[in-house]
Amino acid sequence: MIIIGEKINGSIPSVGKAIAERDEAFIKDLAIRQSEANANYIDVCASVEGAQEMETMEWLIGLVQSVTDTPICIDSPNSQVCVDCIKFCNKPGLINSVSMEGKKVDIVFPVIADTDWGVIALLCDDSGIPSNVAKRLQVADRIMALAKEYGIANNRVYIDPLVTALSTNEESLSLFVECTKELLEKYPGLHITSGLSNISFGLPARKLINIAFMTLAMNAGMDSAIVDPTNRDMLGNIYATEALLQIDEFCLEYINAFRDGLIGPVKK
Amino acid sequence: MIIIGEKINGSIPSVGKAIAERDEAFIKDLAIRQSEANANYIDVCASVEGAQEMETMEWLIGLVQSVTDTPICIDSPNSQVCVDCIKFCNKPGLINSVSMEGKKVDIVFPVIADTDWGVIALLCDDSGIPSNVAKRLQVADRIMALAKEYGIANNRVYIDPLVTALSTNEESLSLFVECTKELLEKYPGLHITSGLSNISFGLPARKLINIAFMTLAMNAGMDSAIVDPTNRDMLGNIYATEALLQIDEFCLEYINAFRDGLIGPVKK
Repeated sequence: MIIIGEKINGSIPSVGKAIAERDEAFIKDLAIRQSEANANYIDVCASVEGAQEMETMEWLIGLVQSVTDTPICIDSPNSQVCVDCIKFCNKPGLINSVSMEGKKVDIVFPVIADTDWGVIALLCDDSGIPSNVAKRLQVADRIMALAKEYGIANNRVYIDPLVTALSTNEESLSLFVECTKELLEKYPGLHITSGLSNISFGLPARKLINIAFMTLAMNAGMDSAIVDPTNRDMLGNIYATEALLQIDEFCLEYINAFRDGLIGPVKK
Repeated sequence: MIIIGEKINGSIPSVGKAIAERDEAFIKDLAIRQSEANANYIDVCASVEGAQEMETMEWLIGLVQSVTDTPICIDSPNSQVCVDCIKFCNKPGLINSVSMEGKKVDIVFPVIADTDWGVIALLCDDSGIPSNVAKRLQVADRIMALAKEYGIANNRVYIDPLVTALSTNEESLSLFVECTKELLEKYPGLHITSGLSNISFGLPARKLINIAFMTLAMNAGMDSAIVDPTNRDMLGNIYATEALLQIDEFCLEYINAFRDGLIGPVKK
């Protein structure tokens, strides 16, 4: 499982406050803890307006890289900011995200074409999020055709089929599962990822829904997720599901994660 | 989901002690709490030797029925004890269990033939637990043929495909999933159940494995389980999975279980 640690995001109130106050220790701690919890990438999203965004991103990326080697996932709704931040990074990471909305792909793909950078692609376009599987797959086909044009291999693309809230759409899971299965069959090597917590929007005890969704999405072939790896229950569930799905041979990673104190009951 | 509450079992040390001391309050409390946690059946297993078993079962079943209307799941390795206990029950429940081992089926099926009793059937025979799907299905076919002979409809049979420990058999989940899918296709209306906790035998943080297994088994079609419904995490996971799999329309049961305080974080 490729885990993209989601904690350094200015839209989270405590993080927004730390950014506003330029609290270095707070940001470094988030980076260290996610890295220690086996995050494969650390997402960095400033969530500030206009001219301040670049400056804030540079500061955040610098802090993360001062305490960990884990590659950065550059996260901004502004694709130009995404590509402009590449120069702050010590090593290739991920761009979060493109879609068929506006000029996102046109801005990002040429820049990462001849690099080792990966990219998260959301299945939406200028008309929004398509409501059915067929239309989402059409968006995916357009993205993958452009990726091919720029020589971006399938395994550098992380498609997020997008999750609708179960409380408003009963078919949320099946829609996600069908998209995932079809895409993996059509584009070998492609990664499927998800921000996933939207699945439980509007429901109580959201964690229960998020965790069961994670297991069912992994069963369909999702091999990445944008989550909080320091959430022991979620991380434990990911390792347990990998063991059950025979992704984790002899349960070795599960057992190691337990020994490292990352999953299971907290030792007192 | 048809939940068979597993807590009244003499092999659990605290319950064994309560049985030895004839602690009525302890047993009644287990019955009430499982019933309040939406158990559909309450399993009763004395786990005592020889002549004492019938007497103990009568005492236990009487206690459970004195505090709840939830039907009994009579649980004994001795099929004669199972059928002899039927007379203690106020209403039809389940027999736990038969298999193709010894004379179990021959003892149980004629007695329940013309009743509303259901039966849990384990996919093993005198040679033990078959190691592959095909052989387990052969055992199932023999059991289902006999059920038909006695006029026991598919929906009165709860097949437990049997779970092997993941720590010793990497294919435990896929074996269970394949058995489940094949059986449900072949025998419409059949129930699939599982004791399931054996899946995590030998591994640390067993609860994580048990919960992820539950979700994946339900996804394959399992519609019953022998579990502790007072385990909030497990019960919450069952409700969450039902909502995701569209078994629970509009998430109504999920929301009600939360409102009833059965799932989600404990309110302080």
